[in-house]
Amino acid sequence: MTDTRLTYAVVGTGAIGGFYGSKLAHAGREVHFLLHRDYEYVRDHGLTIVSCDGDFRLPQVHAYADSRQMPKVDVVLVGLKTTNETLLPSLLPPLLHPRTLVVLIQNGIGLEADVQAWFPHQPLAAGLAFICSAKTEPGVIRHQCYGSINLGNYSCRSASLFEAVLNDFIEAGIDAHEVNYAEARWKKAVWNMPFNGMTVALQTQTDQLLSHTATRQLIYEQMMEVIGAANALGIDTIDEPFAQKMMQMTDDMVPYSPSMRLDYDFHRPMEIHYLYTRPIAEARAVGFAMPRLEMLERELLFIDHRTRRNT
Amino acid sequence: MTDTRLTYAVVGTGAIGGFYGSKLAHAGREVHFLLHRDYEYVRDHGLTIVSCDGDFRLPQVHAYADSRQMPKVDVVLVGLKTTNETLLPSLLPPLLHPRTLVVLIQNGIGLEADVQAWFPHQPLAAGLAFICSAKTEPGVIRHQCYGSINLGNYSCRSASLFEAVLNDFIEAGIDAHEVNYAEARWKKAVWNMPFNGMTVALQTQTDQLLSHTATRQLIYEQMMEVIGAANALGIDTIDEPFAQKMMQMTDDMVPYSPSMRLDYDFHRPMEIHYLYTRPIAEARAVGFAMPRLEMLERELLFIDHRTRRNT
Repeated sequence: MTDTRLTYAVVGTGAIGGFYGSKLAHAGREVHFLLHRDYEYVRDHGLTIVSCDGDFRLPQVHAYADSRQMPKVDVVLVGLKTTNETLLPSLLPPLLHPRTLVVLIQNGIGLEADVQAWFPHQPLAAGLAFICSAKTEPGVIRHQCYGSINLGNYSCRSASLFEAVLNDFIEAGIDAHEVNYAEARWKKAVWNMPFNGMTVALQTQTDQLLSHTATRQLIYEQMMEVIGAANALGIDTIDEPFAQKMMQMTDDMVPYSPSMRLDYDFHRPMEIHYLYTRPIAEARAVGFAMPRLEMLERELLFIDHRTRRNT
Repeated sequence: MTDTRLTYAVVGTGAIGGFYGSKLAHAGREVHFLLHRDYEYVRDHGLTIVSCDGDFRLPQVHAYADSRQMPKVDVVLVGLKTTNETLLPSLLPPLLHPRTLVVLIQNGIGLEADVQAWFPHQPLAAGLAFICSAKTEPGVIRHQCYGSINLGNYSCRSASLFEAVLNDFIEAGIDAHEVNYAEARWKKAVWNMPFNGMTVALQTQTDQLLSHTATRQLIYEQMMEVIGAANALGIDTIDEPFAQKMMQMTDDMVPYSPSMRLDYDFHRPMEIHYLYTRPIAEARAVGFAMPRLEMLERELLFIDHRTRRNT
């Protein structure tokens, strides 16, 4: 591990996977990109990152349309939308040797448990990205702001492998840190569960939700439901001051449309299962009810059903 | 009471007050109508009822634009939208003698308590209308279906007066019954609280809410919150089978837009206070939480605020 460089694959070369993969490639790491819609464009023209931290181009990348053409690698970064999670049992096997670390840079609760069930012996980690980025045209990723990533070890028994990946991110100029897996996933849910769904349900943005008394209170109560669920699941390091901090942080942000609002606006399926259904089910399994977020889940299921029926 | 006929006033001559007042006038009762927007038209042309039970016209009615011009009467039927409830302290006094019965034919919880606080010694009753009607143009009320009314005695100590009013309704061809006041108000809330708000929040109709699994379940849980609140307030005659009955009844109805959805569609203020805020507060006062309906109230407050800002 010390004298050979890790090789990488990116599954889902979108706004997130494409960004981190490109940063690693730009820093000289070997990165293999699985693409879907813009495969031919990227094969011929490479990837362009338009970034608040400085633009760069990768004129030639290892581009693939089919994971069966890809080599086995040391690290797979999964950047798929979780609505495509069930593709992983067929997409991943060609890329994996027994020690390949699979990093799920995705939003939600229950992702690692599902992937582990499909690949019982594979080392897994969570990647929690704090980034505003978008893939706006073929081969182009626009990185507007932020860009840090937190890595949480789920089932990687090799500390040196996990650390080597972390170091690769840091050497690629990414603000990367190791965090406690479960705490990090649930902390992110404290922000994600209220804001993603409420901006869709009320067709609004973060600032509007917080500027109106009734919805500001509701968002806070929803955050406290997530914290209550985390506590009930034994994660006792998330407390009420964290909710206050998330409120304050969102007050300080520019008016923001979370990823689910963008998915809704662009008529893409919404990530309801891992953002709502799973955490609600995990909490219920230990006797903790999340009535407000359960109601929001049901509103979203109704909206998602209507959207898909009309498109 | 036996040898003189009761005299009536209608405050708020709209789809509801206008219908019941016109039925009483058509049956020969003396009815004085307070009008607002279509006062001049009704003064000159009277009222027309286009009804599933047979059309009729009242070519000449006692029409007023100002309650100070009206006589004192034995019975006042209040058909105002509850968003105008605070007009009652100034509208009602000219109509009242000490024994005038005020019947609030309005939707919600807490109406009689507020009016009683304004008029501490006045006999009050609740009128619970089951009717589809609309005022579509000046002086014309369209009565599509149903039309019954339940009267609940709130503070009328004269049994003979209450009974005389009930008989007047019945003699006017209205399906009218006496019901227990608190039970009737809360039974109506079991249907009103879920369907009024949810059809606005999700921009839909009753049938769509019930045909989708997620929202059907949510509506049922919201009904059970109302039943739980009623029980906590000591009204123990409303139970789970009543929720099942309301689900069944709504399944059997044509696709329906409740009054709040119509108010929203026509950019009128929504009756959030008496339909949501008050029952939620009454339940909370006895330690019962209604988290789903509280969330719905907050969504509606946000929507109402946005609608009014944009109009």
